[in-house]
Amino acid sequence: MRRPTIMDVARAAGVSKGAVSYALNGRPGVSEATRARILAVARELGWAPSNPARALAPGGRVGAIGMVVDRPARSLGIEPFFMRLVSGIETELTSSGIDLMLQVTEDVEAELAVYRRWATERRVDGVIMVDLRVEDPRPALARDLPLPAVILGGPEGTGGVPCLYTDDAVSVREVVHYLAALGHRRIVRVAGPEFFAHTRSRTEAFREAARLAGVAEARTVHADYTGEEGARVTRRLLATADPPTALVYDNDLMAVAALGVASEMGVDVPGRLSIVAWDDSALCRLVRPSLTAIARDVAGNGREAARMLGGLLAEEPVEDMETPPGELRPRGSTGPLSH
Amino acid sequence: MRRPTIMDVARAAGVSKGAVSYALNGRPGVSEATRARILAVARELGWAPSNPARALAPGGRVGAIGMVVDRPARSLGIEPFFMRLVSGIETELTSSGIDLMLQVTEDVEAELAVYRRWATERRVDGVIMVDLRVEDPRPALARDLPLPAVILGGPEGTGGVPCLYTDDAVSVREVVHYLAALGHRRIVRVAGPEFFAHTRSRTEAFREAARLAGVAEARTVHADYTGEEGARVTRRLLATADPPTALVYDNDLMAVAALGVASEMGVDVPGRLSIVAWDDSALCRLVRPSLTAIARDVAGNGREAARMLGGLLAEEPVEDMETPPGELRPRGSTGPLSH
Repeated sequence: MRRPTIMDVARAAGVSKGAVSYALNGRPGVSEATRARILAVARELGWAPSNPARALAPGGRVGAIGMVVDRPARSLGIEPFFMRLVSGIETELTSSGIDLMLQVTEDVEAELAVYRRWATERRVDGVIMVDLRVEDPRPALARDLPLPAVILGGPEGTGGVPCLYTDDAVSVREVVHYLAALGHRRIVRVAGPEFFAHTRSRTEAFREAARLAGVAEARTVHADYTGEEGARVTRRLLATADPPTALVYDNDLMAVAALGVASEMGVDVPGRLSIVAWDDSALCRLVRPSLTAIARDVAGNGREAARMLGGLLAEEPVEDMETPPGELRPRGSTGPLSH
Repeated sequence: MRRPTIMDVARAAGVSKGAVSYALNGRPGVSEATRARILAVARELGWAPSNPARALAPGGRVGAIGMVVDRPARSLGIEPFFMRLVSGIETELTSSGIDLMLQVTEDVEAELAVYRRWATERRVDGVIMVDLRVEDPRPALARDLPLPAVILGGPEGTGGVPCLYTDDAVSVREVVHYLAALGHRRIVRVAGPEFFAHTRSRTEAFREAARLAGVAEARTVHADYTGEEGARVTRRLLATADPPTALVYDNDLMAVAALGVASEMGVDVPGRLSIVAWDDSALCRLVRPSLTAIARDVAGNGREAARMLGGLLAEEPVEDMETPPGELRPRGSTGPLSH
């Protein structure tokens, strides 16, 4: 099955190649009736623009990079992480006139389909992949298409795709030792979905740090990062006979929700419950008590990932890059137990 | 000044037109040395891909629409509005395989420059413009380029660009009468920047509604939508000799910040101060007391705007569309004064 060419369309429509070109490009030079007929014939033959035509720029570049956000749309609205990342990426791109293509998908299969389409249609020069998963199928796809990519996460499981990663174990240890020093012995971590690689590495680090710090009860439960589920899980935890005295959340939104639940259940923060958020954001500083949080430079990481991808596209050597571990910022939501 | 063609590049580099095409497209068929020489010559001559080459798709479509977010990057991270809008737009685009190009700019001049570049380089088929401004230069630019556009805001001042608008006066009146009924006579509205058309129409409606409702003191002050500035303005207002007993904010983030400031200053909400947020979001429901807010379907508006733009691109007749006014959702942050 040979791809139909403009010549095939011209022949089938009984017009010149020039007329087809005018019609397909939406330019004047053919009557509207002829244009309609040519478009119908082109559709019928399954004509599609050839890939090279999409990328006549020097070096074959199209001047755009892509990012797929694979998160249910309902949770996106108030999730600060992605807009912070996007704003960082834009900082790097704006001066160079490179565009960012954004797609939101509901699952990883849909995300893979977007990459395939982008590569086939030459929509982007490369992509920034976020949230490395356990047994992530994306690095292999990037290699096979091929589609230049930089991934946030790693450094294990990235299949040779350059990555920007952080050693989360350092921050997990810092939080656990801090809470243990405040006297907490029942700590629950409300994590993101298990299929994210960073969730798993934090879970292992949490278990190990709790053991070393002598925290008798330390366990991880999973939620989906939304405020709604953060609230639900928190309510359930606080309603048990021996409720935890400290809760550590994997994002800011769930921690804000937890603060609301504590207030609604009459649980004093930090007198009876300490709360820690992962990923400090302005949100953590706006609520009262303000939230103790682990701060990472999310926008800076976005900028850095865009820079790495730029290097990759310029065929410069690009190394995996480790970013500094998140820093604990103690605020009003943590303290010793007051009873 | 004629645009240099591939033929000009071939002549100057002393190679065939085919070799130039291979080199510019990044395809095999020329040696690396020749490719480098051709690229250097092309750059020197100022060769750029011709516009039609960017849009060989049937009907001349490139299959992408654009949106420029003109907001300082620092305020984007935790501003729920844009991600809600994006998620709504994506709902409409995803099934059709149309991509969304996103750019973040720091001022309206930079925003105009992006539209010019997108139109010249045929990067997008059309754009969704957000936040109609007072004397907005964008509708005229869209007409002149031309660049198919749909604008959020209006219906005045849109210069013939199809718009999706809401009558905010309805919601402003509802809020003012509700607060007046609760006994409030000193109400301050903390609005967004004055240069936004919706800010101005809300300000006029606020003044008029306060007069009709017999609210003795009602004034509007301006802030930039960030939590930081929302907190600063609130602190200043609450520190006066006769502080307002009700505050109405133009977004959710500033209202969340106000709740924090009230708590920090020992001002009971709603006993001594009522707080209303504009644009209900999950954030308003997560904090305690939960925030009384005006709810609009931001994601739904994004979807609708994308649909209108799709109609415009398909050359269907597209009418201005009025969306339902925001609805007041009373929650814990408003009530009668308790003294």
